Amino acid sequence: MNPPTYDIAAVTTRAACLALDAADPAAPLRDRFDLPEGVIYLDGNSLGARPRAALDRTRDVVAQEWGQGLIRSWNTAGWFALPGRLGDRLAPLIGATAGEVVVTDTTSLNLFKALAAALAIQADRDPARKVLVTERSNFPTDIYMADGLARWLDRGYRIHLVDSPEELEAAVDADCAVLMLTHVNYRTGRMHDMAALTRHAHACGALVLWDLAHSAGAVPVDLNGADADFAVGCTYKYLNGGPGAPAFIWVPRRHQAAFRHPLTGWWSHAAPFAMAHGFEAADGIGRALCGTQPVVSLALVECGLEIFEATSMAALRAKSLALTDLFIALAESRCAAHPLGLVTPREHAARGSQVSFTHPHGYAVMQALIARGVIGDYREPEIMRFGFTPLYTSFADVWDAVEILRDILDRADYDTRAERSAVT
Amino acid sequence: MNPPTYDIAAVTTRAACLALDAADPAAPLRDRFDLPEGVIYLDGNSLGARPRAALDRTRDVVAQEWGQGLIRSWNTAGWFALPGRLGDRLAPLIGATAGEVVVTDTTSLNLFKALAAALAIQADRDPARKVLVTERSNFPTDIYMADGLARWLDRGYRIHLVDSPEELEAAVDADCAVLMLTHVNYRTGRMHDMAALTRHAHACGALVLWDLAHSAGAVPVDLNGADADFAVGCTYKYLNGGPGAPAFIWVPRRHQAAFRHPLTGWWSHAAPFAMAHGFEAADGIGRALCGTQPVVSLALVECGLEIFEATSMAALRAKSLALTDLFIALAESRCAAHPLGLVTPREHAARGSQVSFTHPHGYAVMQALIARGVIGDYREPEIMRFGFTPLYTSFADVWDAVEILRDILDRADYDTRAERSAVT
Repeated sequence: MNPPTYDIAAVTTRAACLALDAADPAAPLRDRFDLPEGVIYLDGNSLGARPRAALDRTRDVVAQEWGQGLIRSWNTAGWFALPGRLGDRLAPLIGATAGEVVVTDTTSLNLFKALAAALAIQADRDPARKVLVTERSNFPTDIYMADGLARWLDRGYRIHLVDSPEELEAAVDADCAVLMLTHVNYRTGRMHDMAALTRHAHACGALVLWDLAHSAGAVPVDLNGADADFAVGCTYKYLNGGPGAPAFIWVPRRHQAAFRHPLTGWWSHAAPFAMAHGFEAADGIGRALCGTQPVVSLALVECGLEIFEATSMAALRAKSLALTDLFIALAESRCAAHPLGLVTPREHAARGSQVSFTHPHGYAVMQALIARGVIGDYREPEIMRFGFTPLYTSFADVWDAVEILRDILDRADYDTRAERSAVT
Repeated sequence: MNPPTYDIAAVTTRAACLALDAADPAAPLRDRFDLPEGVIYLDGNSLGARPRAALDRTRDVVAQEWGQGLIRSWNTAGWFALPGRLGDRLAPLIGATAGEVVVTDTTSLNLFKALAAALAIQADRDPARKVLVTERSNFPTDIYMADGLARWLDRGYRIHLVDSPEELEAAVDADCAVLMLTHVNYRTGRMHDMAALTRHAHACGALVLWDLAHSAGAVPVDLNGADADFAVGCTYKYLNGGPGAPAFIWVPRRHQAAFRHPLTGWWSHAAPFAMAHGFEAADGIGRALCGTQPVVSLALVECGLEIFEATSMAALRAKSLALTDLFIALAESRCAAHPLGLVTPREHAARGSQVSFTHPHGYAVMQALIARGVIGDYREPEIMRFGFTPLYTSFADVWDAVEILRDILDRADYDTRAERSAVT
């Protein structure tokens, strides 16, 4: 089935947006979510909205599985199998196959495992490779975790922080052990060419670890098609798994036998209940687990994943690009009198599912937007982020958000004295 | 207030048990839990029962905080502060003070952090100390994590597995960097003398890391009183936090400035939202955090903790010892014709809140008990475990459980062909 097309070129009225919504095959998916009244939610790139099914599912897990099933539910309710079952269900969204993904722990910890495994593989292949290449603009925790790993290994690893995407290829050379990148940048919304960068890194003998925090559920990803080596990502953004829901890790079959990391908890053991004294890693993706998982939060991830089975990433991508194209076009035309600077690439191939604009008073403007029900967020310096989740964002939402932004800017109705809080 | 006394010496009838329950000041706490009809739940040492409050709390977190508050709830609902707020609430149960505990990640991961920090402190003080002493009978994941860390550091650390508790003191010598013990053994229910072993280890120059998985909420613990160095533990057993609920880690103030570990995610950063490129550890216990936490599971931990504020660990300990004394006495008298072997110490000072008996057909007998609504569990070899949670276990439960056990044994009403499943 071909993805739907959205013709946004001639959209200059709210009525035209409503017409797009009326014709949108993805529009009914919005009913699968519970969204607050009076809010235009453009922060699904930070925390996805709540699937309606999550409330019943929570009640089942808490009242029935925990309350009534008690310890028996580890087997009867399938709690032990959840990381793998959810991983299998997530796999098609990122070009993975069943048995290659588990939902577990946090993105930070999964990145630590994958990076440790990658360095160990390279230490066997080519121990002279000591450089880990990433971007200075990567999400900081990725760099912190890599730094923690490198310092503690104390074997001469160093992190090369590249300042612009254009310099990446040159930075991957014969000294590079691992290229570690976030596929879609959290501030700019810029997306890397996964296949091309992976190919280049492999040609140079490096392994590639992708962080899909802002990609999974947002853009089509084809890890196996790109021949990537490892990936981690987040379920609480575009996958709508719930606040702080466990993250995922992907290890392709070809690397599973060599996948070794130091976080060898009992869930990664070949026979966790044998209570054997010696550690023996599970076969397959199970070795990427560590300890007991938070079942209630974990179970809710399924409510987000099942919604994707009513559509396709190709269809969602078509709508996502239409939403972001329209937002850019309307913001630039209707707010032309104001100093908005587009940070996100115009080129579709280099754009995730968010749009970032700078404004000299970006923080204050974002606070004013939030006060009027348009929820995006702010990142230094001066960047207003707007995330577009095609599952529940409508074209009328885009129109209304831009009109509220325009009104705020036209009337300078924002408080530049507003203190910058830690989180916005 | 003095703890209540329970006179179980003369209890030889169910009526006497009912009389104990009627006089028990802790009996009303059972109403704070939702327990299934027809079940005597003696597995709270593996997964605690569900506090009634957990269902409403889940609905609040999922429907209101997530569904309506969305991203704003990180601040407005206090999600960011949860690990510390829950830690402060847990602290009195383990002899800790506010600002020394966070609820986060898993016990395995917290043990990894604490052990890494302990080794780093010793590497500065006395780098020749390369031995990590623990018990062969420790919960396997503790040994696996220590092994994972030691192998990966590759600096000559080795793990000395001691075969009996009596050999521990001799094993802690001038080569010992860290003594790592589980306070109450998961199979036997034997409890170590925390103060004495800590004192001995300190006299030998070693640091001590305690795993309180089977202690927190089960027995009085005084970490600061014992001058312990680090502790980790579990919230889903005696603390009734929910299946796989996040674990805790305790770092006393005197070690916080030196507390360093490799899992340096953004939540352990001094200013997580500054998105700075360099890692700078938070002051205080915050540096024991790593990545974003599973909020729904985390929030439920509070429902378990708040119940403890209606009682005291001294009162619960008095009832726990009465329950386990009574269970031992009744099982030994009423099942005297059968080969039950008591594994758990009779001595109060060496007993946790569980009782373990061996039986040559322990696995089959436990399956028969579970089929008749008495839920304990089984651990190799031949061990039937019965956990007693004074918050919701009654003296009549003890009587009924023993009577069902006696009936099963008298009639040999168990199937020795029953296959041993992975989890029981």
